[in-house]
Amino acid sequence: MQLVTIIKIGGNIIDDESQLSQFLSNFNEIDGAKILIHGGGKLATSMSKTLGIPTQMVDGRRITDAETLKVVTMVYAGWINTSITASLNAIGTPAVGLCGADAMCIPSVKRPVRTIDYGFVGDLEPGKLNIPFFQLLLDGGYTPVVAPITAEGAQLLNTNADTIASTIAVSLSKYYQTHLVYCFEKNGVLSDVENADSVIPTLTESEYLALKSTGAIASGMIPKLDNAFAALHSGVGRVSIGHAREVASIIKNLSGTDVIV
Amino acid sequence: MQLVTIIKIGGNIIDDESQLSQFLSNFNEIDGAKILIHGGGKLATSMSKTLGIPTQMVDGRRITDAETLKVVTMVYAGWINTSITASLNAIGTPAVGLCGADAMCIPSVKRPVRTIDYGFVGDLEPGKLNIPFFQLLLDGGYTPVVAPITAEGAQLLNTNADTIASTIAVSLSKYYQTHLVYCFEKNGVLSDVENADSVIPTLTESEYLALKSTGAIASGMIPKLDNAFAALHSGVGRVSIGHAREVASIIKNLSGTDVIV
Repeated sequence: MQLVTIIKIGGNIIDDESQLSQFLSNFNEIDGAKILIHGGGKLATSMSKTLGIPTQMVDGRRITDAETLKVVTMVYAGWINTSITASLNAIGTPAVGLCGADAMCIPSVKRPVRTIDYGFVGDLEPGKLNIPFFQLLLDGGYTPVVAPITAEGAQLLNTNADTIASTIAVSLSKYYQTHLVYCFEKNGVLSDVENADSVIPTLTESEYLALKSTGAIASGMIPKLDNAFAALHSGVGRVSIGHAREVASIIKNLSGTDVIV
Repeated sequence: MQLVTIIKIGGNIIDDESQLSQFLSNFNEIDGAKILIHGGGKLATSMSKTLGIPTQMVDGRRITDAETLKVVTMVYAGWINTSITASLNAIGTPAVGLCGADAMCIPSVKRPVRTIDYGFVGDLEPGKLNIPFFQLLLDGGYTPVVAPITAEGAQLLNTNADTIASTIAVSLSKYYQTHLVYCFEKNGVLSDVENADSVIPTLTESEYLALKSTGAIASGMIPKLDNAFAALHSGVGRVSIGHAREVASIIKNLSGTDVIV
């Protein structure tokens, strides 16, 4: 089967112009079919502030009211997605900017209100992605660049980019060999959070559970790693985690952490 | 040859939620391959005002400085394009939101500074559109929804939506039968600007030039009609102008003005 590399970059990389530009240049060098999923970054928060819209966070998640939804859609699907897409095309990757509403490629449902009302936040419906649309673009030689906005009918919804990346990888695994890569501002999964060089090259699920129980894994890594193992259990061929500037080395297994089951 | 209907809606329709919703419902009913190009509307101006960015206009055209470019990209390619795309998908049109940077489908060049510096404004390069990309989407059954943002390399540029519509129509005319429809908030080309019912059903170029010389044609119509006749001279099969809510009737020749050479 043909290989598709699905790469997610986090907001901290997007916020840093030189890191983003270095990442895009490395991303451009990756051979074969690929998909880029990007997070949000701080621009939405600063834009909301300037517009006088209060930012509410619960457990690290933004509460998305109607005004905040407008801001995140403008910033993520408008400015960030369009800028990255133009930059990639300029350096040689024929990129196409998307969000989940395009061809309803990533449908979602508004998160039900239980103890917390997250507002206009979408949870994914993994079996319902528009795979033929992704295939049309990939087989046509195009690189989808996906913003973390999805839709339930006409209602746009703010959506976690890590989950979008793993859901795309899982959904494509029936048709392609898949490699999911989480890129962020650290060198990989660290055995010692205080030591940036303590990268664990290969992390099995049992090792992860042992490290998690001792508190050695940074708390911010836990949802990412849970996503990573879930993806492997659902058909994704390979999952890696590492620094955005080393994406080409991560692909070649020379950098970052490979998560294995 | 297969027919493609290329429809442009103006900012006044976008600003009016009920007119926009009525238009989208009619647009959804149009048979066959179609493309929607949308203008900007007032949201970018009000957003700029709230953000403290002064709006400068010269001869009805916005001067686009770096901050204004960010705002129009967010509003046009982010909020408006994504909302229209989600709404169309929800009612049954498999729409894909685009701007000119996607797959570099509409390259442009920054307008040279002569007497006026328009800033980050793009002039189109008609021969350079990525026609295979439009064909991929159209032949795949998708409806492109195009925001008036284009790119010269990595540089995004604010671009006139009427010109984007006619350039797409002209460029597709080698491969498809084309019908270009300008939809706005008037019933068509009026012989008496004071009388909304004085629609000219069929307007030839010599009639247009005669009406223009007597000042009977509203000045705002002149660039639109110049674009319309230029499109007909460059291979577009049919050009119509009429009210957004009557788009289905315009297609059937029951409403609006057909411009002919």
